[in-house]
Amino acid sequence: MIPGGRRRVYELLELAAPGDHASRACDIFIITLICANVVALILDSVEAIHQAAPLAFTIFEGASVGIFTIEYILRVWSYVEDPRYSHPVRGRMRLVLSPIQLLDLLAILPYLLLLVGLDLRVLRVVRLLARAARLSRYFSGLRTLGNVIHAKRYELFMVTIVLGVLLVLASSLMYFAEREVQPEEYSSIPATMWWTIVTLTTVGYGDVFPVTSAGRLLAGVIAVLGIGIFALPAGILGSGFLEEVQQRQSEPKTCPHCGLEIAD
Amino acid sequence: MIPGGRRRVYELLELAAPGDHASRACDIFIITLICANVVALILDSVEAIHQAAPLAFTIFEGASVGIFTIEYILRVWSYVEDPRYSHPVRGRMRLVLSPIQLLDLLAILPYLLLLVGLDLRVLRVVRLLARAARLSRYFSGLRTLGNVIHAKRYELFMVTIVLGVLLVLASSLMYFAEREVQPEEYSSIPATMWWTIVTLTTVGYGDVFPVTSAGRLLAGVIAVLGIGIFALPAGILGSGFLEEVQQRQSEPKTCPHCGLEIAD
Amino acid sequence: MIPGGRRRVYELLELAAPGDHASRACDIFIITLICANVVALILDSVEAIHQAAPLAFTIFEGASVGIFTIEYILRVWSYVEDPRYSHPVRGRMRLVLSPIQLLDLLAILPYLLLLVGLDLRVLRVVRLLARAARLSRYFSGLRTLGNVIHAKRYELFMVTIVLGVLLVLASSLMYFAEREVQPEEYSSIPATMWWTIVTLTTVGYGDVFPVTSAGRLLAGVIAVLGIGIFALPAGILGSGFLEEVQQRQSEPKTCPHCGLEIAD
Amino acid sequence: MIPGGRRRVYELLELAAPGDHASRACDIFIITLICANVVALILDSVEAIHQAAPLAFTIFEGASVGIFTIEYILRVWSYVEDPRYSHPVRGRMRLVLSPIQLLDLLAILPYLLLLVGLDLRVLRVVRLLARAARLSRYFSGLRTLGNVIHAKRYELFMVTIVLGVLLVLASSLMYFAEREVQPEEYSSIPATMWWTIVTLTTVGYGDVFPVTSAGRLLAGVIAVLGIGIFALPAGILGSGFLEEVQQRQSEPKTCPHCGLEIAD
Repeated sequence: MIPGGRRRVYELLELAAPGDHASRACDIFIITLICANVVALILDSVEAIHQAAPLAFTIFEGASVGIFTIEYILRVWSYVEDPRYSHPVRGRMRLVLSPIQLLDLLAILPYLLLLVGLDLRVLRVVRLLARAARLSRYFSGLRTLGNVIHAKRYELFMVTIVLGVLLVLASSLMYFAEREVQPEEYSSIPATMWWTIVTLTTVGYGDVFPVTSAGRLLAGVIAVLGIGIFALPAGILGSGFLEEVQQRQSEPKTCPHCGLEIAD
Repeated sequence: MIPGGRRRVYELLELAAPGDHASRACDIFIITLICANVVALILDSVEAIHQAAPLAFTIFEGASVGIFTIEYILRVWSYVEDPRYSHPVRGRMRLVLSPIQLLDLLAILPYLLLLVGLDLRVLRVVRLLARAARLSRYFSGLRTLGNVIHAKRYELFMVTIVLGVLLVLASSLMYFAEREVQPEEYSSIPATMWWTIVTLTTVGYGDVFPVTSAGRLLAGVIAVLGIGIFALPAGILGSGFLEEVQQRQSEPKTCPHCGLEIAD
Repeated sequence: MIPGGRRRVYELLELAAPGDHASRACDIFIITLICANVVALILDSVEAIHQAAPLAFTIFEGASVGIFTIEYILRVWSYVEDPRYSHPVRGRMRLVLSPIQLLDLLAILPYLLLLVGLDLRVLRVVRLLARAARLSRYFSGLRTLGNVIHAKRYELFMVTIVLGVLLVLASSLMYFAEREVQPEEYSSIPATMWWTIVTLTTVGYGDVFPVTSAGRLLAGVIAVLGIGIFALPAGILGSGFLEEVQQRQSEPKTCPHCGLEIAD
Repeated sequence: MIPGGRRRVYELLELAAPGDHASRACDIFIITLICANVVALILDSVEAIHQAAPLAFTIFEGASVGIFTIEYILRVWSYVEDPRYSHPVRGRMRLVLSPIQLLDLLAILPYLLLLVGLDLRVLRVVRLLARAARLSRYFSGLRTLGNVIHAKRYELFMVTIVLGVLLVLASSLMYFAEREVQPEEYSSIPATMWWTIVTLTTVGYGDVFPVTSAGRLLAGVIAVLGIGIFALPAGILGSGFLEEVQQRQSEPKTCPHCGLEIAD
């Protein structure tokens, strides 16, 4: 194969350059195939649909994995055209070990293992995740969201810490308050954590709830603290989005008096 | 009919100009009639009220549709006075096909079809929607809200995408975690989606909830992520409202030194 | 009585001036009495406590109303010292008809009517409300909160409108989707509104929930819209609090070059 | 013992200075021991785990308390090296009575009392709290969160006041609306408060809910007000986080015209 052919394959697999219609068609085909696989996995779980056409899903899945395998091999072969992976051996190693490429491998490996006898059906979900992650490469808009979350990752991590401490503390106190009266539901601190998380997030299924006065008093305090658990990330992300907007707006200005640039 | 008469009809149907009391009375009459129709549809659904006066609602509905039909015809006839729709044929076509006018047609069509024998009772709700949409023309204040949501539509759309991916992923994982123990409630991935949406939005009816340890662990993570699903739009809209306010405030200023205008 | 005595009564009843210890003691006594009345009304509703000391509550209530009546009369008598109500007749009329004074009358009237034979027990709650409103006069800090809500009242009102339209629309659609299968729970549109409000606010008791596929799909959309119903006021109030802070910070500045004031 | 030895003990117990590896190891050992104690208390509550190794937990707990006691004594002995507590008697008194040191005492005292015959098992939870509080000293990042909450403590306190008034008022009204039909669930105002807090926080377990029309109307209003209860702290904290960020950014600037510093 000539290097020009390898270059073309690389261009087709990469995000399409403006005007490159063939590459764009290639992108759309892969997106559609990924989406169709997600839909197939969802529909296949419905008993009635699965029994109406049991073979159809198996064949579609096999064909998809075949295409994804070919895509994977072509990518490893052609990506030496990318300056980042230009070395034939070390470049390819780095590509294969990059997170997105490992996810792609995860998306085809379970099926390939199935062919050699290993049944890892639960891995279909992992494959689903791998597929979804692959799609994000086509949604540049998710980057704004990701930027804000990334800029505020430290504050959000601290909220998680606070949530964790609250979870342990509330569960321990609740366990001591309710275990006498409801030994089934509040059988241990880890079991009580189920109640705590359902209350702190204000989901409140109603499968477990306190019945003693002490427990209800405690639950009231915990539920009110749950409001804070909502308010903190809302406040953090709110300020994050605003900073993101302000950063985009703040370009260097020039003073109208002397024409020199003023740092904001 | 003289053109002056057509112009007057146009003025009466349009939002009233300041001081035009007749046109204002016309606006208020239409608003009241729309509200009364909404109230009638609600009350008519109550068995006791419906049986107390079954004819009253039918007569009121017929009369209202009659008035709305006359209004519709008058509008099509008179709106050539509006510069946007001035052409007798093409202007009227554009008016008839404009979204708000199509909604108006939807609001009278089901009843007219009923007269010729087609029973589309479910369309009464669509009519209700059409009526409500009509009212928004009188609430200029909704525009601020709409502006903010419109300015942030891209970020909000991204949140919907994230919600969608979470929905599919969480439902798939939960389905594999709980289907053995609760085959009724978690019968398929689409069925599990009901649980997921009820949990992610923190509604938590309690008709379906996980009972296995793995399922509860997973549900805890999903419920906590649900907090983020609330925090993201709250943060996005928060920054949106602030920008809206700042935009309104930022008028051109003059430099206190030399009296020249400074762009903000 | 000498005018000086009337002036002193006025000072005692008004919020204490700094250093006026007697007036301060008077304030604290009234606050304590109001709080004690609220606590008494709450405790009196507990059967066991009521039966342990049935007379105690009646006596305490009677004594409190007596004090409040004396306070009311003294206020009407002495407030002509206040420049706003200085006219003996017209000033007093204005005082008696002012909202806070009417609330005070509401707080004593039901008991006085009880003495002449009218039993308006449900008015005890109104009295509770009147009492609580009276306390707000001592909490100057609530004013910041009130300012922000007041500054954003228009946007918040618009959210209420949107909530109202959503409520009517969602209830109508849900009624048509579920009434066949659950004629008890979804018996009419007003009855369905109970389900809608419980879902839109994400409370989700679980006493009513959809069981049909169409109903669940619709409920999912409504629950997701419920997130927006939370996000809108959070965003509005967030920007309100920020503006409040910025307004307090923005005082006139002087230019360091020429000493002239610069409007921000 | 020589003063140099006491100084070294002080350095080991304090947060490690950069490069002091022995002190850092000491920090990590204490953190690990605290975490292990929390995990042990949680696991010990699980019946199966407790019975599998009943002695292991007792021994581990005893050993931990032993180490914490030694740490406590060493701290009291060596902290005279700290300038704040340099006085042998008064400095040590101040150290012993400082909040963090009292918490440390609380963490070991219950066990020591157990040795002399007093069984205060419920205090194990308090000990857990004391342990968790101790960890916060190692998480400097929690300070940002704490700063924002501290800066906005007044507004947040006002929200709590509003929540309290709403709680009392809603419970009283609901009690009068539902007590006839559901005398069990709405037996008194304090009992009704359980329903109110579950509704205002939008948890909604579904163990108690109104069934009368008046009660449901009232509950709808209360649930909608519950949205505000979420929106207020979210808005307050949102503006708080933004101010925190702006404060960190605002450093003194120099005027581009004359090079002099301008206060922002």
